[in-house]
Amino acid sequence: MASAPHLPTDPISSPNNGKTFDQKRFARIRVATESDVPHIYKLMQQLFAYHNITHLLKSTENSIASALFKPKFPHLSPVTALVLEVSPYQFPYSTCKVDSNVINFIEPPLPLSADFDENLQGVLLGVKEIDLDNMPLIDEESEEFRDVKNQQDDVFIAGYVMFYPCFSSFFDNPVFHMEDLFIRECYRGKGFGKWMFSTIASKAARMGFSSIDWIASQWNKSAIQFYTQMGARISDDFRVLSLAGKALEAFNDDSDKGLCS
Amino acid sequence: MASAPHLPTDPISSPNNGKTFDQKRFARIRVATESDVPHIYKLMQQLFAYHNITHLLKSTENSIASALFKPKFPHLSPVTALVLEVSPYQFPYSTCKVDSNVINFIEPPLPLSADFDENLQGVLLGVKEIDLDNMPLIDEESEEFRDVKNQQDDVFIAGYVMFYPCFSSFFDNPVFHMEDLFIRECYRGKGFGKWMFSTIASKAARMGFSSIDWIASQWNKSAIQFYTQMGARISDDFRVLSLAGKALEAFNDDSDKGLCS
Repeated sequence: MASAPHLPTDPISSPNNGKTFDQKRFARIRVATESDVPHIYKLMQQLFAYHNITHLLKSTENSIASALFKPKFPHLSPVTALVLEVSPYQFPYSTCKVDSNVINFIEPPLPLSADFDENLQGVLLGVKEIDLDNMPLIDEESEEFRDVKNQQDDVFIAGYVMFYPCFSSFFDNPVFHMEDLFIRECYRGKGFGKWMFSTIASKAARMGFSSIDWIASQWNKSAIQFYTQMGARISDDFRVLSLAGKALEAFNDDSDKGLCS
Repeated sequence: MASAPHLPTDPISSPNNGKTFDQKRFARIRVATESDVPHIYKLMQQLFAYHNITHLLKSTENSIASALFKPKFPHLSPVTALVLEVSPYQFPYSTCKVDSNVINFIEPPLPLSADFDENLQGVLLGVKEIDLDNMPLIDEESEEFRDVKNQQDDVFIAGYVMFYPCFSSFFDNPVFHMEDLFIRECYRGKGFGKWMFSTIASKAARMGFSSIDWIASQWNKSAIQFYTQMGARISDDFRVLSLAGKALEAFNDDSDKGLCS
């Protein structure tokens, strides 16, 4: 195992096209920075396309950057986005090898306290080594998802997740609301989703939060199976309602006031 | 119509037991203050009992007070609770009479800007006059829900709702998440729920928010009918998942780290 960071471990494959990954690879999860926004937006577009609801996506790169890094509403809970990166090179803090498909990661001794602020941007949450001998993958979109900050290091964004702390009347402590756990297709089935989810669950448990809540599509049986295997409960009874668009705008109408004038 | 605040308008009924309301009554919606917490907690208990999920209620008076008025986590979106009050006496700002069952209210010219902070506590959001001639009501719990700050004025808490602003990956602007819109049984069917919901919807629309989201129980047909008549959409596909209790605590386990040491 290579011990120095950024040393190529498999000169036989071509790190320059970054397409075929069939040997050892390294992965890490870190808190997103503003330079990740274009990738996050592309991943979000893929997520909405996967759900066949592209027409419902109103987010833009600007609105994501605003929500994550420069909130217009100072009282809004900050949203944390995590990104999953893969590389043929070892990341810092990758100090142990783990078997393929085994979810395991090292949490570096960083100040991950209860506060979610700009100091967390870019903070590394975990690294692991994966052996692709038995599960080669071809990343056709690698150039599109190349990490611009690691141009010469061949680091590629493979997935993302967002979450924020919030109140819940069910519990006596806050909860995390999770949105958009998404792994690009060629990286699925390798434990990355479980790793991303575990990272948030560990954080919630260690902070004394009461729950992680999120929404999934009923038709997405593989997602629901994935989550229930992780210990999640799905409510048969709860339904999601919303008032948006013209139905909401209808309430921005002062005409009723005239009756009282 | 009585024009002076706090003047009894129907000396025939007994304002001291506050049980039988069969003539004119006044109602108002205001932002909750810390002294409302015991009433909010009792209303929350009734809400959970109505849903037959009393065993799931982990909130306490302390946790509600903490969530609403002294957040332990400074980065958490503040939760706003509104309370509905009824009284035989006229409230301030009640300057016009409306027909029974007609939803209409006067929004006083108060600084309801985008910020949700402690300055909003107690702020009045609307007042209206209701004529109970054709829909008398008996409030068996009036003493239990007497507003302690208005002891001699016979003001009774009739309902509450909570909401907080949050991010949504669907939209380019924040949304409100609404929890626990609840009207005590004897006050239902009189337009109060619609008034409470409209108050939040108006605020969302005027702030340029993209949506109000909330959860309802599928079996609660009357609630779903109420909301869809207000313009809400219900998702047939979305399901609510959560990781809580022991399943979440399982992630607060450092044993995996041993594999890498």
